[in-house]
Amino acid sequence: MRATIMYRAGDVRVETIPDATIVNPTDALVRTTRACICGSDLWPYKDMEPVKNGRRMGHEAIGVVEAIGAEVRKIKKGDFVIMPFAFSDGTCAFCQEGLQTSCVHGGFFGYTEGVGGAQAEAIRIPHADGTLFVLPVREDNSLVASLLTLSDVMGTGHHAAVAAKVARGKKVAVIGDGAVGLCGVIAAKRLGAEQIIMLGRHPDRIALAKAFGAADIISERGEEAVERVRKSAGGFGVHSVLECVGTEQAMQTAVSITRPGGAVGRVGVPHYPGIPASDTAFFGNITVSGGPAPVRSYMSELLPDILEGRIQPGRVFDRIIGINEVPDGYRAMDKREAIKVMVKP
Amino acid sequence: MRATIMYRAGDVRVETIPDATIVNPTDALVRTTRACICGSDLWPYKDMEPVKNGRRMGHEAIGVVEAIGAEVRKIKKGDFVIMPFAFSDGTCAFCQEGLQTSCVHGGFFGYTEGVGGAQAEAIRIPHADGTLFVLPVREDNSLVASLLTLSDVMGTGHHAAVAAKVARGKKVAVIGDGAVGLCGVIAAKRLGAEQIIMLGRHPDRIALAKAFGAADIISERGEEAVERVRKSAGGFGVHSVLECVGTEQAMQTAVSITRPGGAVGRVGVPHYPGIPASDTAFFGNITVSGGPAPVRSYMSELLPDILEGRIQPGRVFDRIIGINEVPDGYRAMDKREAIKVMVKP
Repeated sequence: MRATIMYRAGDVRVETIPDATIVNPTDALVRTTRACICGSDLWPYKDMEPVKNGRRMGHEAIGVVEAIGAEVRKIKKGDFVIMPFAFSDGTCAFCQEGLQTSCVHGGFFGYTEGVGGAQAEAIRIPHADGTLFVLPVREDNSLVASLLTLSDVMGTGHHAAVAAKVARGKKVAVIGDGAVGLCGVIAAKRLGAEQIIMLGRHPDRIALAKAFGAADIISERGEEAVERVRKSAGGFGVHSVLECVGTEQAMQTAVSITRPGGAVGRVGVPHYPGIPASDTAFFGNITVSGGPAPVRSYMSELLPDILEGRIQPGRVFDRIIGINEVPDGYRAMDKREAIKVMVKP
Repeated sequence: MRATIMYRAGDVRVETIPDATIVNPTDALVRTTRACICGSDLWPYKDMEPVKNGRRMGHEAIGVVEAIGAEVRKIKKGDFVIMPFAFSDGTCAFCQEGLQTSCVHGGFFGYTEGVGGAQAEAIRIPHADGTLFVLPVREDNSLVASLLTLSDVMGTGHHAAVAAKVARGKKVAVIGDGAVGLCGVIAAKRLGAEQIIMLGRHPDRIALAKAFGAADIISERGEEAVERVRKSAGGFGVHSVLECVGTEQAMQTAVSITRPGGAVGRVGVPHYPGIPASDTAFFGNITVSGGPAPVRSYMSELLPDILEGRIQPGRVFDRIIGINEVPDGYRAMDKREAIKVMVKP
């Protein structure tokens, strides 16, 4: 089968490798009907050290179950499923609490040793019963783009909003105009935010942010951005900040624009050593929360809004490519030519 | 009147200064019947740079209202009141939300320029109507020690527990066996914690922690402490950590012993540059919250439990001194000879 392998920063290749197969009795084999390139894939694309046999890439997909292991009980051959970016057994204490990203038998696609990546024609799914979410529609459904976002970016944007305690009447800022930030706008709107401020600077993304419900756009950075957000939110900052970037500056800005008593929900993989601890953060009683989103637990909550057309996160995809064009997809996202790339293997 | 002034690290004096008076029409003048020395007073006692005219000390007191300004409406002469460590107007957006420590007209006793300290025979209270809490008992009440803790340490311990999301059935760790940590044990127990682990090492404090409901005591530090807490809590760490110290090591330990999905409530004034951002904290979806406790908003909730004898935070006081002995009180607390010192001016 064809699959995507990264060998070092900037070196992504699509190669023919042995077909994915069932290994453990709790596995399922999924034929990938759609996958994506993620903003978080751009971190290794920028800075990955050379790895001899490379790293299998991709952690977002929907597809059709082709085979199941002997101990799989809930998932059936032919099911149309969403693969969350983390696999999980569905039974441990953390899974029961809805924090599948901390599953004691879990891990991450395209990251955990021995588990493949989703930018491929097929993928082995460990703990299929706990991991996969069966869709009530067929694979040719017209909402497939939006459904695909439940594997990561829509669930992650929602997680940022939940961690930032977005609720009816709150003023919200979203840092980062990538697909996660844009889904964060959708999530904030959906949870009843009174005002949504997008911190971003790319015209196509800003247009989408506006369409999703961001009324204020702030393109400055650093201190200037802080001043503008505060002013825009009435002087004290916003109740909730969705930090969807992961840089030190983004986290610094996040804390600085949060209103006393407010919260930062961070979902950008942190590329900074520490969260600012003093002054604003401490004396303002600011909460910092978040991490990898347990998207598996959000699927049933978000699905009806997609199926009934109330949210359209699939609009973040602005390029569709075949499996062999994946390296160019990375390049396009890295150059900000595309917001998010869908892969049709 | 006699009042406490710190001139530099280690140099605390009690001096005769002009009597406190009403300055603004919203002020009240309170005769201090009891004050305290706080663990947070030990930070400047350790490291304060020389200040020519010194800094007025003390931010915890109960007392009797001696006079009120022309615009004071709720507080009356003769009222027996608690003075929270922060003053607040009681009407701004933050006060209305119960976050009086962020009051737009507020500040901190013994810290804000032009506002006195409570380790004195009397103190001017700005924004008396918003700041003071009138007690339904007389100044000779036998529960006065416990009532006094509502001005800071009991409210602060409670805040740590609230920020750490303590609730029925949760496993809780308290870092720091000072008065705030001990009150944190009381608060955790009161909120229904299933298990309370105290990280501390002073026999007298440990005895009190046990009396307050801490079943497990861990006296190690650093990595060893982390291992022991994890083991004691069943392997994954605790749901809630009350960080009542404020050092870098304490915060590092706090994050390391928190169970995925759990929360750290920090109330120790941070003497560290950043909250650990990566690995455990991010991938475990750990929440860090807290700051200066809005103790004013907790008084009405905690008061009945004191009056009806369900909690006895006054037991943290193990030394009572007169105003002139305050310098020795600092020394005793700094040397860990006393847990918390009560001042009877």
